[in-house]
Amino acid sequence: MKSSVPFRWQRKDLVGLRDLERWELDLILDRAFQVRKRPKDPHELPLAGKTVVLFFVEPSTRTRISFEIAARRLGANVLALEGGTSSLQKGETLLDTVRNLQAFDADIVVLRHWAAGTPTVLARRLQLAVVNAGDGAHEHPTQALADLFTIRDRLGQIEGVRVTIVGDILYSRVARSNLWGLLKYDAKVTLVGPRTLLPRSFGDLPIRLTHSLEEGVEGAQVILLLRIQHERHNQMHFPSLAEYVRLYQLRPCHLKKAHPELLIMHPGPVHRNVELSDELFHSSHSVILEQAANGITVRTAILEVLAERLPAR
Amino acid sequence: MKSSVPFRWQRKDLVGLRDLERWELDLILDRAFQVRKRPKDPHELPLAGKTVVLFFVEPSTRTRISFEIAARRLGANVLALEGGTSSLQKGETLLDTVRNLQAFDADIVVLRHWAAGTPTVLARRLQLAVVNAGDGAHEHPTQALADLFTIRDRLGQIEGVRVTIVGDILYSRVARSNLWGLLKYDAKVTLVGPRTLLPRSFGDLPIRLTHSLEEGVEGAQVILLLRIQHERHNQMHFPSLAEYVRLYQLRPCHLKKAHPELLIMHPGPVHRNVELSDELFHSSHSVILEQAANGITVRTAILEVLAERLPAR
Amino acid sequence: MKSSVPFRWQRKDLVGLRDLERWELDLILDRAFQVRKRPKDPHELPLAGKTVVLFFVEPSTRTRISFEIAARRLGANVLALEGGTSSLQKGETLLDTVRNLQAFDADIVVLRHWAAGTPTVLARRLQLAVVNAGDGAHEHPTQALADLFTIRDRLGQIEGVRVTIVGDILYSRVARSNLWGLLKYDAKVTLVGPRTLLPRSFGDLPIRLTHSLEEGVEGAQVILLLRIQHERHNQMHFPSLAEYVRLYQLRPCHLKKAHPELLIMHPGPVHRNVELSDELFHSSHSVILEQAANGITVRTAILEVLAERLPAR
Repeated sequence: MKSSVPFRWQRKDLVGLRDLERWELDLILDRAFQVRKRPKDPHELPLAGKTVVLFFVEPSTRTRISFEIAARRLGANVLALEGGTSSLQKGETLLDTVRNLQAFDADIVVLRHWAAGTPTVLARRLQLAVVNAGDGAHEHPTQALADLFTIRDRLGQIEGVRVTIVGDILYSRVARSNLWGLLKYDAKVTLVGPRTLLPRSFGDLPIRLTHSLEEGVEGAQVILLLRIQHERHNQMHFPSLAEYVRLYQLRPCHLKKAHPELLIMHPGPVHRNVELSDELFHSSHSVILEQAANGITVRTAILEVLAERLPAR
Repeated sequence: MKSSVPFRWQRKDLVGLRDLERWELDLILDRAFQVRKRPKDPHELPLAGKTVVLFFVEPSTRTRISFEIAARRLGANVLALEGGTSSLQKGETLLDTVRNLQAFDADIVVLRHWAAGTPTVLARRLQLAVVNAGDGAHEHPTQALADLFTIRDRLGQIEGVRVTIVGDILYSRVARSNLWGLLKYDAKVTLVGPRTLLPRSFGDLPIRLTHSLEEGVEGAQVILLLRIQHERHNQMHFPSLAEYVRLYQLRPCHLKKAHPELLIMHPGPVHRNVELSDELFHSSHSVILEQAANGITVRTAILEVLAERLPAR
Repeated sequence: MKSSVPFRWQRKDLVGLRDLERWELDLILDRAFQVRKRPKDPHELPLAGKTVVLFFVEPSTRTRISFEIAARRLGANVLALEGGTSSLQKGETLLDTVRNLQAFDADIVVLRHWAAGTPTVLARRLQLAVVNAGDGAHEHPTQALADLFTIRDRLGQIEGVRVTIVGDILYSRVARSNLWGLLKYDAKVTLVGPRTLLPRSFGDLPIRLTHSLEEGVEGAQVILLLRIQHERHNQMHFPSLAEYVRLYQLRPCHLKKAHPELLIMHPGPVHRNVELSDELFHSSHSVILEQAANGITVRTAILEVLAERLPAR
């Protein structure tokens, strides 16, 4: 696929989708489609001699591993750092820890942090490239790009697609990043969730809000399910898990009103038989494992695009 | 050494020795002897382009490291994943976590888990190759293969060798895997331990059981000592550690009745002056560190054999 | 820079600076200056085929990462091992764990341990090379060599330089290693700290002790600040942190009496606005991030020098 984007990537960092232009999303997605067509062990290693630090202050499996696979495939030197074993324990500020990484010649830091805004602050203060791998309930841009890639790959386009996002919207950085991305393509977004998990502030956006799953799935071409982020809840947001499941679990009966070629998506990890029934997880509508695989492809593209802007040493 | 095995390896996984045929054990051991004769930095890398995930939900030093060294020597891309930092913490099932690894193009997953049977379940449900690196008190096949390799290397054969296994049989996956392996070679196995740690169910096998260490070591060519698995005990199995040491610690006085060329083995980690006296640990009978080194050789052979069956991509 | 050292490195290990000769320090520093002049991705990999184990029983960010970068740049196979996931948890002695690493063909083990003297014991008992990456309050030789390198790099020499070390001397392995190193160059060392953190035993050395920061910084060309090692304190050593800050925080007002080309150093992690004011952290006097970068250079030199003594396999 030839790139349809006339411009070159200019940003040092990728901290969120909210501020990106649509052509910037296109540029990354185009590159990801190119990445997928290439052999997996290329002769040229675009990140040879570069150092990528995976700094996960919050735990992660799939995001960390997919960045690790992507960075190694590009020939980068990969260093992993976890909050628990880092000098944060000794009272150092995060900024100083990352300043040290920069002094160590790190070129790109991939950061996951429980505090919203952390990647933005670091990006402003440091010369190295910062990739947000999830900050609090703020943004998770690389996951949303993997989701956009999956939609474009399966449906041929993102423009005007009817996407329904279901669940813990309040605490979900995945929902937010997807929302900013989808709106740039004028996708038709519906948010579904209980009152307590569906912030009214979203009411100002050109999207539909509903508390009824039945209503929300009508005509949907994509249903994006979200994990209940228990670890972020500081209060009870619904009477019981059973109650949540009764009202918001996606089950085969809901598919009647959805588009016949519906895609069921979930960023993972999935709580089996909570967000969706096992039957749907294993159905042909589910592209959940494809999303995971696409995550590597998209992250490879992102690292490549950012590395091209890095100064030569 | 030319292989004496007329068949080719057929299995996708290595989850235990109980179900293997003797020729399958021979095939792995033959390959391990070939591996040992090769230079350590070969030009051909049999696992180049393959991804091996080390997924240790239970902690481990020597097993994880020896797999890591083996996989890297074969040129594989190695990813490490621990239970504590993985999405298991977020409520994902183990099967779904490994499904994701598969979606990430992982070819082989080396799994240690506290629950017996876990590798078997994963192996059945997934296309990637599963290697059991220890599951509960069930099996630890690669350790037993390293032990069989050590016996064959030192004594020239396994057939008919008199092997005495001492200690915490009840909770030992190493004992079980060794037992299944040794019986396929018609080795003469004696199990020694206190009543509470020596399950009667073993009485149905063609082996000797005794509660007396003096009796158990008579004529032994190999004594395999086991660590007390305190972390698995859910009750007191003996009055005190001092009592256990008095009755079951291997000391020089026991060697009089054993075979003069006795091998003392222990899968490690050793509790010094518990399972055996320091004097014996440092004696010429002890091949404990050889077992550790052989562990790398045997695990290299196992990864190679499994990789040859992997589909090309 | 041509080496001024007529001798060759003879030691198997680097456990501390106290017992080194001055020419041995020169040899390592000379090599570090050579390392810095070389391209970062050399064609020859001096540690190709060698295995370096990073064994950090205490947590660390910068030391572990800088060793990891150094070892990888030299082409070594790098294995990381942490206390929490190792067989130490199962009751194995540290010596036996490292014996196993040796059986696994490890060539160099880089050890951080909370118990002073641990690297010395291991070095004596094992054939592999041991590098002390910090043992209790005893020594941290590679950090001190990075600090000496920074001084020589910035001031042209270490001989006779006026160095003031401020803070938690009692618990600081960095202070001790720097002290031994600096004294071999006849540097003029002043130690500053509250009575409770400034051991009288240092009074026997040819150095100046004072409890007054104003007094201590007079004429200083280098001020080396130390982190308060709360995690090692077993009692209160000063009334409050505010009291400590009032008396011992380095602030712009102190610089009047110091040498005009003063270097402010800190091994990190820095407690912002505790050991020094933010203003000074960001001032042109501060070479704190240079120290971090120099840490990689010096550790590369150390691994290289030790590797040259390793037996061929």
